Amino acid sequence: MQRKQSGTLSAEERLIARHFAPLATHPGAFGLRDDAAAIAPPAGCDLVLTSDGVIAGVHFFPDDPADLIAKKALRMNLSDLAAKGAAPLGFLMALALTPAVTDQWLADFSRGLGEDARLFACPLLGGDTDRTPGPLSVSMSAVGTLPCGTMVRRDGARAGDRVVVTGTIGDAALGLLLRRDSLAARRWNIDDHACRELHTRYLLPQPRNAIAEIVRTHASAAMDISDGLAGDVAKLCRACALDAEIDVARVPLSAAVRAALAGDAELINRVLCGGDDYEVLATVAPTQFAGFARAVADKGVALTEIGVMVAGPGEARIRDSRGELIAFENPSFSHF
Amino acid sequence: MQRKQSGTLSAEERLIARHFAPLATHPGAFGLRDDAAAIAPPAGCDLVLTSDGVIAGVHFFPDDPADLIAKKALRMNLSDLAAKGAAPLGFLMALALTPAVTDQWLADFSRGLGEDARLFACPLLGGDTDRTPGPLSVSMSAVGTLPCGTMVRRDGARAGDRVVVTGTIGDAALGLLLRRDSLAARRWNIDDHACRELHTRYLLPQPRNAIAEIVRTHASAAMDISDGLAGDVAKLCRACALDAEIDVARVPLSAAVRAALAGDAELINRVLCGGDDYEVLATVAPTQFAGFARAVADKGVALTEIGVMVAGPGEARIRDSRGELIAFENPSFSHF
Repeated sequence: MQRKQSGTLSAEERLIARHFAPLATHPGAFGLRDDAAAIAPPAGCDLVLTSDGVIAGVHFFPDDPADLIAKKALRMNLSDLAAKGAAPLGFLMALALTPAVTDQWLADFSRGLGEDARLFACPLLGGDTDRTPGPLSVSMSAVGTLPCGTMVRRDGARAGDRVVVTGTIGDAALGLLLRRDSLAARRWNIDDHACRELHTRYLLPQPRNAIAEIVRTHASAAMDISDGLAGDVAKLCRACALDAEIDVARVPLSAAVRAALAGDAELINRVLCGGDDYEVLATVAPTQFAGFARAVADKGVALTEIGVMVAGPGEARIRDSRGELIAFENPSFSHF
Repeated sequence: MQRKQSGTLSAEERLIARHFAPLATHPGAFGLRDDAAAIAPPAGCDLVLTSDGVIAGVHFFPDDPADLIAKKALRMNLSDLAAKGAAPLGFLMALALTPAVTDQWLADFSRGLGEDARLFACPLLGGDTDRTPGPLSVSMSAVGTLPCGTMVRRDGARAGDRVVVTGTIGDAALGLLLRRDSLAARRWNIDDHACRELHTRYLLPQPRNAIAEIVRTHASAAMDISDGLAGDVAKLCRACALDAEIDVARVPLSAAVRAALAGDAELINRVLCGGDDYEVLATVAPTQFAGFARAVADKGVALTEIGVMVAGPGEARIRDSRGELIAFENPSFSHF
């Protein structure tokens, strides 16, 4: 009589045991051998929960390196935690795999994910793996912690608060354009080094978790910039029921973006509305500004004041060097 | 000059505000107007985290009613919480929508989701909405709470513990067969009423959250039955490094399943391996059994002893009425 009742792991269990269990270093993840994780939140802390994900052909190119797809998905969530002032505790992942996914792809994916899980101290807590006819998708929920009641919200700005951003804006958006159109570099007249820098920013965001604690203790409002600076400032304005006056000349740009803009001034629209920056947008009271800037600089992160919050119905006004409002067809990157 | 800087919600923001914000009744969800939720875990409690989801064409039929797709996705996660002994706190949802999704579909989906969020006291905490070229998918992560260190694990059984299941087994698996093959009912010689019952069990699981607290205080090990009884007992055995002796004659079956088996005895394989039961599989020490059974009965839930845990390498042995081992080609439902 055929004897195939049990004793052997299913294909899904083998996949999880081989590729993902090593990433589940939190004791409450039970090595991914249970149906759920159990975590004891640190005393006096709130848990901060956020979800973000990527879909092949929508958020990444199917032939992007698997390790970078994994890192980007995790970093999108880490960026949300950073902007809210939370320290990472761990993440859940729902993975929908196509029949074309190879074991090597999974090995690369899990290696990249494991590198970032360690780098950001954000272990895998659990998840769900399914087959899909496609496209491949990676959906994550990250859990962070911070002292009770201290999450930095979108709606906390006051009139007179300064508007600041970390890092530089627009690199990833131009990196995406280059990825789609290899001739763009020639039109923009930028060199290979600049191309690589822009493309790398698109593939691998640099979330600002190093300054999460500083954001938490200094910012009046914050969010990460994921859908384009113009649209995200507008979202913050709506949440706060205040206007923002933003001076486009002050928006921090990398050398590569400045070079591209010199070649094609129209690119400013993509720089400000393109998305995938994963920088922190924050507002800070004038009295807090100097301390905030100093603490962020001590972490090696650039911080730039780009405008001010003012009374108003909740609109972002982005002005060019002549003080004219810049019009945007689509201030936010959106799939809708 | 064209003025379209802000002030208007993006299509995604409108969709969230209209369909999903009303479900975000937890104060820490901030009406879905922030980037993250902040929840204060009850003192002395662990948080239990689990993820599960559905993909069109894989876990449901694209023309299934939208409200039931939403309910099934949430109930799959609620079922995990129930089996772990946790009370629901809320859930996160990542929704990938196809271009074919209409506003009416979304209205139906969110209505169903809202009904279950209220019924199970499990509000929406946050999420992520994207467009996909397809298929539509719903991925959820549920958060539950229970007293610190009391999550019922898969690996807690001891030799001599009784193996119990709630409700009845196999209804949903036969409901799926009926959904795929409308002539099956005639071959099985079952009536319309039985057909409807089986199909309803497939469409709308009945997770056992009503007995979560009883499972937590009485069971030595537990998990929900989502991939078929045979495979899930095998998983529990592997986790516990114990064997299970299961008497198939004791597996609780509904009148509809018994009628179908009378028409086609071969269906027993689908009944035991088909998945989508969302009942609780638990082990319980002999001294705890009577109290467990009484408390579960008081909640109006059926509980049936189907076997016993015994020393062994970690295998499930399911025997027919003659004591012969039943062989299964695929003891677990799996997409892999």
